[in-house]
This record gives sequence, C-alpha cells and structure tokens, in this order.
Amino acid sequence: MDGAGQLDVMLVHRMRNMRPFKSLAARLVTSRQGLCSPFKSRQGLCSPATNQQSDEVRTLLQVFVDTHFISPGETNVGLFGRGLSCSYGPLGMELRRNVLHEWWSSVTGSRAQVFGINTPSSTCGHLDMTHLDRTPCDHMLRNNLLHGALEQFVPSFELVNKNLPFGLAETGRCFHSSKDDGSAEVTLASLVWFCSPRTSSQWLDHWAGQRLKWWRKFALAPCDFSSSDVPQEELEGPASRGVKIFYKFPWGQEPLEVLWSRGDGELMDAHTGVRSKLLSPNGRKSIPHVVSITGKVERGLLAFLCNSLHLHKREDARQRKMLKLHPLLAPIKVALGIGRGATMELRQVCEGLLQELKEAKISVWPGHLEATSTPLEQLHSKYDEMGVLFSAVISDKTLESGLLLVRSRDTAIKETMHISHLKNFLCRYISAADNM
Amino acid sequence: MDGAGQLDVMLVHRMRNMRPFKSLAARLVTSRQGLCSPFKSRQGLCSPATNQQSDEVRTLLQVFVDTHFISPGETNVGLFGRGLSCSYGPLGMELRRNVLHEWWSSVTGSRAQVFGINTPSSTCGHLDMTHLDRTPCDHMLRNNLLHGALEQFVPSFELVNKNLPFGLAETGRCFHSSKDDGSAEVTLASLVWFCSPRTSSQWLDHWAGQRLKWWRKFALAPCDFSSSDVPQEELEGPASRGVKIFYKFPWGQEPLEVLWSRGDGELMDAHTGVRSKLLSPNGRKSIPHVVSITGKVERGLLAFLCNSLHLHKREDARQRKMLKLHPLLAPIKVALGIGRGATMELRQVCEGLLQELKEAKISVWPGHLEATSTPLEQLHSKYDEMGVLFSAVISDKTLESGLLLVRSRDTAIKETMHISHLKNFLCRYISAADNM
Repeated sequence: MDGAGQLDVMLVHRMRNMRPFKSLAARLVTSRQGLCSPFKSRQGLCSPATNQQSDEVRTLLQVFVDTHFISPGETNVGLFGRGLSCSYGPLGMELRRNVLHEWWSSVTGSRAQVFGINTPSSTCGHLDMTHLDRTPCDHMLRNNLLHGALEQFVPSFELVNKNLPFGLAETGRCFHSSKDDGSAEVTLASLVWFCSPRTSSQWLDHWAGQRLKWWRKFALAPCDFSSSDVPQEELEGPASRGVKIFYKFPWGQEPLEVLWSRGDGELMDAHTGVRSKLLSPNGRKSIPHVVSITGKVERGLLAFLCNSLHLHKREDARQRKMLKLHPLLAPIKVALGIGRGATMELRQVCEGLLQELKEAKISVWPGHLEATSTPLEQLHSKYDEMGVLFSAVISDKTLESGLLLVRSRDTAIKETMHISHLKNFLCRYISAADNM
Repeated sequence: MDGAGQLDVMLVHRMRNMRPFKSLAARLVTSRQGLCSPFKSRQGLCSPATNQQSDEVRTLLQVFVDTHFISPGETNVGLFGRGLSCSYGPLGMELRRNVLHEWWSSVTGSRAQVFGINTPSSTCGHLDMTHLDRTPCDHMLRNNLLHGALEQFVPSFELVNKNLPFGLAETGRCFHSSKDDGSAEVTLASLVWFCSPRTSSQWLDHWAGQRLKWWRKFALAPCDFSSSDVPQEELEGPASRGVKIFYKFPWGQEPLEVLWSRGDGELMDAHTGVRSKLLSPNGRKSIPHVVSITGKVERGLLAFLCNSLHLHKREDARQRKMLKLHPLLAPIKVALGIGRGATMELRQVCEGLLQELKEAKISVWPGHLEATSTPLEQLHSKYDEMGVLFSAVISDKTLESGLLLVRSRDTAIKETMHISHLKNFLCRYISAADNM
C-alpha cells in the first residue's frame, strides 16, 4: 500500500507534467495574432476581438460554469473573464479559498517578520437606508490595500522593536472604477514590505523571484507565467522600479501581480507630524523604504483554471476535458460513489467515510447522493472536468472485505485499497504535492 | 515526554476551566444594573452609561490595543467596542482568521450538503474616479448575505440532484446604516439552509443547538453564552420563528448570532418566472423553506476576548492580566526567546526552529528578535496578556544538550523538553484542544 502510494505520487507528478496535447484554452482560441480579451474591447485598450474569438472564449468560460466554478449568467461570466469579482459556485469558492490560503502561507510563512493585518474596506460616511437588501452609499471605498498598511506602520514598527525589514500582509476586496467600464470589485492580496533605503532594490528582486516561483509552483505549464521589469516610461506614481508577473492567456498576456519599489514619500505623507516614529534607531537614521507586492486574486484564479484545462484524446477518438489543477488547489480531493450492492447499506458506509475524511479536513464530494443510474464512466468524465483528484467507489465488495476502488484523475489508473487506508493515502498524496 | 505532554494537556484543560478569580471584564465594569454599551448610547437604544462605566470599558478595550489585537485610535477602538469592523493589529487579524476558520469548518464540515459560495459585495453602478486611494461610490452595497444565497439557489439545487435539505455558506463584509449612527461595516458569517416546509422548525432548533454548542466550545465561561427564542412580537420580516444567541458583555447582553425560519416567500421572489425550478421532485411538490443563520463576526471576537481576559493574583499580591483564549483561537501558539549564551548562535537556532514550526503551520512569535535586556518574567507577563499558549527559551544549554525550557500560559509550569520534540508537542496539544 505504502509502495503503491509512493509510486502513484511519482506517477502523478510525471503525468501531470506531461503535455502531450495542446491545452483546451489554446485550442479554443487558435489564433494568437493580435488577440486580446474580448471583454477588454469595451475599454478600448486594444482592437476588438473577432466574433469567432469571442465565441471561443465564451465556450472556454462556459466550461467553468458547467463545472460549478462560477455561477451562470452572462454578466457574471463576463466579470470573471475580465478578472473581476463575480459570483462563484461551490468549486470556485473552494479554489479561491485554497489560492488565498497558499498565498497567505507563502507570504507570512516565508519570513519571521511578516504580520497579517485587517483593515476596513470603507471610510464611513452618512447614508440613508432605502432598500431592504442593498443600500446606495457615500462610503469612500478603498481601491488598494497599500494605504491601510501605511497607516498600520507605527504600531507594527514598535512591535518589531524598530527592526527592519518587516512586512504587513492583507487580502481583501477593493473597488475599482474607470470611465468606460463602470465600477468593479476585485480581491487583492497585498504585502507591503518596509526596509532600509539601500536594500529596497534587492528586496524588490527577492520578492519578484519568490512570487514568480509561487505562481509556477501550481502551474501545469510554468512557462506561461513570466515576469519582467516595468520600463522606465511606464512607472507609476512615486515608483523608482517595478516588476510585473504575467500570465499568457489565450487572448493575450495580462498581469497577475505587480511589485513596486516606492521610496519613502507615501509613508511620510501617511504620518505627517509623527515623523520621528518612523526612524529606525540603528545606524544612520532614515525613513524606511516601501516595496509593495499586489496580486490580483480573481485573475490568478482564471490563470490557474486556463492553465490546467486540458484535452485528452481517448481511444475512441472522442475528446475528454480535464482540469488538472494542482493537488493543493483542487477544490475537491476525493469523490465518493457507490457501485453494485445494497444501496442503503453502501450509502451508510459512504456517510461514515465522508465524516472521517471531513474531520481530517479533506474536501470530499458526496457523489453517493447522486442518482445511482449514472454510468461510472460518465461520472469519471464529470469528475475529471471538475478537477477532482480521486474518486472512490464503494460496492458490495467493500462490505465483504473492506476494499474499495480508487481512481486517479491524472493517470486514470484504478487501484484497490482498504477503506481504512484512504484517509492516510490522501493526506500523504496532498502533502507530497506540497513538497514537489 | 509523551506522558508529560498528555499530563500537560489534561492539566491545561483543568486550569483553563478553573475560575478562581473574577474576570477582568467583570471587575472593570463592576455594576451590572442598567448597564449598556457606552457606544450604544449614540443610537438612543438605552440610557447613556455613566462616565465611570465608559472609562472602565475604555480601559478594557485599551488592553486589546496594548496587546496588538486592535489598532490604536479612539475611532477604531469605538468601532470595535460596538462590534463593527475596525483596523486589526496582527493578533486580532490572526484571531479573526481562526474564528472564521473554525466557523467554516463547523458549518461546512458538519453536513455533507453544505456548500460554500462567494458573491460580490456590491452591485455595480457607474462612478467617477476622484481620489488616488478612496473612491466615493454609487455602488449598491449589500447589508446581508441572504440574497446572494437565494440567487445561487437554482444551480446549487441542481448540483444536489434536487435533494433537500442542503445549505449555502458564505462569510463576508456587509454594510449597515442607521439614521443616528452613520454607516458601518460588519463581517457576517451566514448559512442559508433549504429544507422541506414540514421540517423547517426542527432544523431551526437543530442549528440553534449546534451554534450555541460552537460558541461555548471556545468559551472559558460557557454560561455567559446563551440562546433564547425571539418573542412573537419581535419577529422580523417574513419570519415565523427566531432564535438568538447572546453573550453577556460587562455592559449588558448583546446578540452574536440570529437564526430565522423564513418560509418560502423570499426564495420565490428571487426566482419569479422560473418557479418550476424551485420544486423538489419527490413526494408532494413544494417550494423549499429557508432557515437563515447569521453570525456577527466582530462582536463574536469581542465576546471571546472579554470572556477569556482574566486577572491572576500573584504571590506578591500584584495582578497579572491573562488572555486565556482557547488553544484553537489563540493567535500565537508559541513565542521563542533566548536566554543566557552566545546571542548570535542562539538566534540561529531560533531561526531554524521558527522555520520548522512555520512549516507545520504553527503560528510562532519571533521573540528572539526582541531586545535581550528584557527580564524573562516581564516577557512572560507580556505573552500572557497576548494569550500566547507557550513560550520556549533557547539558551546555551540548548546548544550543549538540545534541551529548552517550555512554559505554559495556563499553568505557568516550566518543562524541560528536547528541541526536536517541540513541534510534535504543540501539534498534539492543539489537536487535543480541538477534541476537548
């Protein structure tokens, strides 16, 4: 069992990283010349996509509706395609949680001196209640997380005994607006890093490297994630340097994360009058410099989804869609199902197993609640499209001998396993994927 | 080591649940007659608190500023005291994460049929960009999470093959307003439960019981958390029954969570025109009934903080403040510190240990970065106030024999332990607390 499990992990590693077929995303949008997001055309940023391209991208996005990643509706799908906050279905919600969790662990876990903070998304104004569900507002809504972190600088600096460097991390909703596009909501993942002036450029490089490594860790095709320095003429605000991390979407390259070396001006502006509290006691007294790292969560989700969606040619020449999401990101680790046997008894076994897995924090799909008439082959296709890592079938054999059949998404190999081993097998598999 | 660990867990369990001293919260606000939140008086809900009471509550809240749970500033502290979203310091942020995590696990883990969803917090309107950081808006901001869930009903219902009951869970920021109080932001934790009409009352009772049990699981003084049926004359909207879960704050009782049995009206309103999609196929065709469960996260945090803040009389008759937060909620599980020995070498050992603990997802305080001149006794007091579960001191003895000294917050007992055992000891301790 142990040996088989290990073998499986290695096998999965190889399988997941083989790319014998062109990605579905690439097939759906075949021509890459002059491509841009069909949704972008509204902003006039690039020439409008052709109708054919639009249709193809729509087909691509519809896959994510059909598999419960995003909620139906043209507006909703449009928001998601533009990398904006939308209504997520259960799988998208779980994927979003997993991505935020991994971002958080990587940023706060990598250094002793990163602290999490949480700031309100609005500055309160006065408003009238007009409607049961939604209230129009004169809130001043934030459009980034930088200023919340700058405001938190002084108590945090005291917390670390005025030692540099240190960072403040926060994830949260922000509100953007443009003249052409109305207003929109995005989730940002922000690390604001405070360091000595002479090290700020090194830290920018350090974090750019770390962040690119992070994106690529979860990618099936790491080369589609890239980073490049922002040209001098495109530097924003007070920034002296910048690095962007891009993903090559079927409709063109878009930034997922932006890093700026911002100097000390904004920190000073946020603390006029108490400037002495900004000074580091050691060596030459100077105001810390700020490096900001801002990830766009929704666009990141879209990148991971596009990156892991693949076509698999079957022997009968029909195509099978597969969502080969990284094991840590896959919203569902295992789906339970019932095979031949007394349905009532098998369901009870499933319920027990489901509780055991849930207690071990393994996200599990209650496939045993589905109509029993669905052919197994059809269920497997469905689970592959949903990116479910494994499916386990409980049958009368399980009642006799405790054995169940476990099928891997990535290899399609079925393995017989004792029901008491499933939990540990999954835990080991997921933790192996973490260290891959 | 194992035996000692087990013993310690049991000991901690007993210690944490002993209440030899009056809680600090109760001492600070001694008179309970006619008390109410000093912050509430602005809303005219009850007679203004006396100045003395205000001062006492302010002293109470200041403790949470001093220990990095909330950010400084009178406005910020005022928001927190009223159970509204505020700026959290690193410890408050981590506490909030832990509370949300535990809520989520308990709600989605308890039943196969609870799915997570994630909906935008605003309906987009058109707006103009006016300011770098904040944008005034004509967004329609949500004031609850119910309507997002009702809109998600149809695809979710199909997902479960139209089997009832099932639930949709979401946590997120909502925006409230009142004529007297301006506008405010709160984090809500919502479960919307869909069930057959004849079972809705039973489900209300089921969830009320579950939720009360959850609050009490993390309490030091469970009896301060209570639940009661909402009287007929106070039922809101379409609700036919309601249950509220209360916490007895020093300034009076306030609701932490509200459960309503809402009937089918709102679900029908959200899906006019596609009513057939609402019908359950089995038995008598009927529209599902809705039970809503809504927790106020910020007020819950305040309740847990007040509940676990305690005075401890020392032998020298001076008082020691302690924050006996539940091990699962405590933002920091262990603080590292250095004792006698070569500082540079000891710091290196600490850095290695810190990385090991972080990789095991144990939140650790880098106390070895603090000024070495602080007396150990003073550090312990500080950590107790911050609710840090354990502190571990690395000294020249550690370099010689691998042994370090581990002190428990709740017992103040110091135990010698090999450095290689610390991680497992903490993991076991936290998991034992989960099953307590």
